[in-house]
Amino acid sequence: MNPESITAGAKTRAQVLGQNHVNQSLTKADEFSKPMEELASAYCWDEIWNRPGLDRRMRSALNLAMLSALNRPQQLKLHIKGALNNGLSQSEIQEILLQAAVYCGIPAGMDAFRVAREVFSEGGV
Amino acid sequence: MNPESITAGAKTRAQVLGQNHVNQSLTKADEFSKPMEELASAYCWDEIWNRPGLDRRMRSALNLAMLSALNRPQQLKLHIKGALNNGLSQSEIQEILLQAAVYCGIPAGMDAFRVAREVFSEGGV
Amino acid sequence: MNPESITAGAKTRAQVLGQNHVNQSLTKADEFSKPMEELASAYCWDEIWNRPGLDRRMRSALNLAMLSALNRPQQLKLHIKGALNNGLSQSEIQEILLQAAVYCGIPAGMDAFRVAREVFSEGGV
Amino acid sequence: MNPESITAGAKTRAQVLGQNHVNQSLTKADEFSKPMEELASAYCWDEIWNRPGLDRRMRSALNLAMLSALNRPQQLKLHIKGALNNGLSQSEIQEILLQAAVYCGIPAGMDAFRVAREVFSEGGV
Amino acid sequence: MNPESITAGAKTRAQVLGQNHVNQSLTKADEFSKPMEELASAYCWDEIWNRPGLDRRMRSALNLAMLSALNRPQQLKLHIKGALNNGLSQSEIQEILLQAAVYCGIPAGMDAFRVAREVFSEGGV
Amino acid sequence: MNPESITAGAKTRAQVLGQNHVNQSLTKADEFSKPMEELASAYCWDEIWNRPGLDRRMRSALNLAMLSALNRPQQLKLHIKGALNNGLSQSEIQEILLQAAVYCGIPAGMDAFRVAREVFSEGGV
Repeated sequence: MNPESITAGAKTRAQVLGQNHVNQSLTKADEFSKPMEELASAYCWDEIWNRPGLDRRMRSALNLAMLSALNRPQQLKLHIKGALNNGLSQSEIQEILLQAAVYCGIPAGMDAFRVAREVFSEGGV
Repeated sequence: MNPESITAGAKTRAQVLGQNHVNQSLTKADEFSKPMEELASAYCWDEIWNRPGLDRRMRSALNLAMLSALNRPQQLKLHIKGALNNGLSQSEIQEILLQAAVYCGIPAGMDAFRVAREVFSEGGV
Repeated sequence: MNPESITAGAKTRAQVLGQNHVNQSLTKADEFSKPMEELASAYCWDEIWNRPGLDRRMRSALNLAMLSALNRPQQLKLHIKGALNNGLSQSEIQEILLQAAVYCGIPAGMDAFRVAREVFSEGGV
Repeated sequence: MNPESITAGAKTRAQVLGQNHVNQSLTKADEFSKPMEELASAYCWDEIWNRPGLDRRMRSALNLAMLSALNRPQQLKLHIKGALNNGLSQSEIQEILLQAAVYCGIPAGMDAFRVAREVFSEGGV
Repeated sequence: MNPESITAGAKTRAQVLGQNHVNQSLTKADEFSKPMEELASAYCWDEIWNRPGLDRRMRSALNLAMLSALNRPQQLKLHIKGALNNGLSQSEIQEILLQAAVYCGIPAGMDAFRVAREVFSEGGV
Repeated sequence: MNPESITAGAKTRAQVLGQNHVNQSLTKADEFSKPMEELASAYCWDEIWNRPGLDRRMRSALNLAMLSALNRPQQLKLHIKGALNNGLSQSEIQEILLQAAVYCGIPAGMDAFRVAREVFSEGGV
């Protein structure tokens, strides 16, 4: 993978998900998980998130909707924190998850709301 | 179901997906599909789409992402038309589907792009 | 696979999905698809459908709900015909698919209703 | 949302999932989760569960099958308790989950059986 | 179910997933989960795993890919242990999960890598 | 995206899926789908397929299993052709899809076998 893309993506990733998260996942990655972390940095965070066509607020909103649909609560939790960092309000997150509940099914909505409440009760960002 | 909610939702649905679509689905619904059409009008289109917390452009964007994740090409096709009606450009739709490709997997992205191209080649809106 | 189980399952399968379907799929299966057809006959149709703990009407209802959730329209179509054969009314099928719409999401419901209407317009049973 | 529908749904929800569950989720909901809880009450529990076309025993059975397919163990756990309240026996729940195992895949079946055993070992209802 | 198939499958299952796992799940199964355990033994482990057409190393690889796609972390954990038993190296498991990340989406890859690291940190086999 | 990675991936893609496929998709891509095609070439076909850790025969096998699980018949069709190009026999493809049927559910297996038969009846490679 392109080292410049990994670095550029890791920077965006830290801005969105927090430097702590990047330190714990990317920096401390062992040999086994290193290529996965690099793939995420280059591919998600540089090739997609660093494209200029949508702002970060919109990209966070899309991720909350997709991660609810995909049933990935641990990634959803990270990205709810990221959404707050990117300027989405709790009220806008509420709207996104309500829309997910109707399009992905009520159980998907119930699960997503529980994850969001965990984030907010832990102090949010 | 609340008749006022069905009516208010059907109006929004026609503004987003086009009056032709509503005429074909909601107005001509037989006894079998009528409650499904009414459920969609009241719950999707009134209870969710008519909430003021997100604008229609954002709601369309969320739907394109979720319908790609959920693997529902026929609904995706309708909502790509709706997204154009709601002011998303082809370029923004491209960005949304690229993000979906990385989060939902490349096959989901390939399928979503094919659906979008069908819409655009049919004249879009 | 146990030949007796394949035979017993194929018999149940023909009773539920129709002898025509079994003739087209099981009897005419080439070398490539034969083990898949036998697996379906033995495991779905004998090990599950021939268990006495639930009646066929209930088993058909469960399948309509699961096939809507699993997004498998071709199998759903076959099993809507099977559900009619097993004594579910169009009105009961409507109820099952409405429940699926709320739990699996409105797009799943819309797709399932379209499949059901195709079956009914083709003459149903 | 229609306040009468929320109230009517909450009543049915308490009868199926238990008054304790409703107290913990619906009554104690904060501002963030309140619209999700109201959506579930009105939309799942009044618009669907209160329809007369299927009895509660059947609706519970459908939910166990769908929640196994949808991979939602927390909601499945609640609805296994609900299924016992609605008169399904442990043996019938066993049959439903075996059918889910064959149609949704063995891993879905293994996960669903583990959830069911947790419910039964906690005293069931 | 065919008792010989259950026995033959349980033997293969113990060779792949470990005798401890079989003792805990199959031997200690109560009346409720016994038919599920027998179905898994006969159907997965005898009818599929005992077929001669693919070696166990390949079958383990396929399972890691499918369980990542299907979002079943508990079954994935068991089968990562099984993959090590069947001769896949940590490096090959890494390759499989990277491929899953691109085809099933980055969140699926992140979750699968976390599960794999848990297995390796617990001592692997 | 790295132009060298796009080129290297497109070459591998043509070797696996056929030059015709690449001509139709990658070369003729319009402005809208070009970044999706480039993303697929660089990330699937260069970053993953060009990694030395697994041979192409294994990577094709993994894809057949994942695309069956992910319910993506059009991509599955392409990759069954690719699997034949990469040296998997019809008999090995049969084994992979049978294993998918048990782990992803019988409907997934039935759909995958139908896709495979379409490929073989069209002359396969």
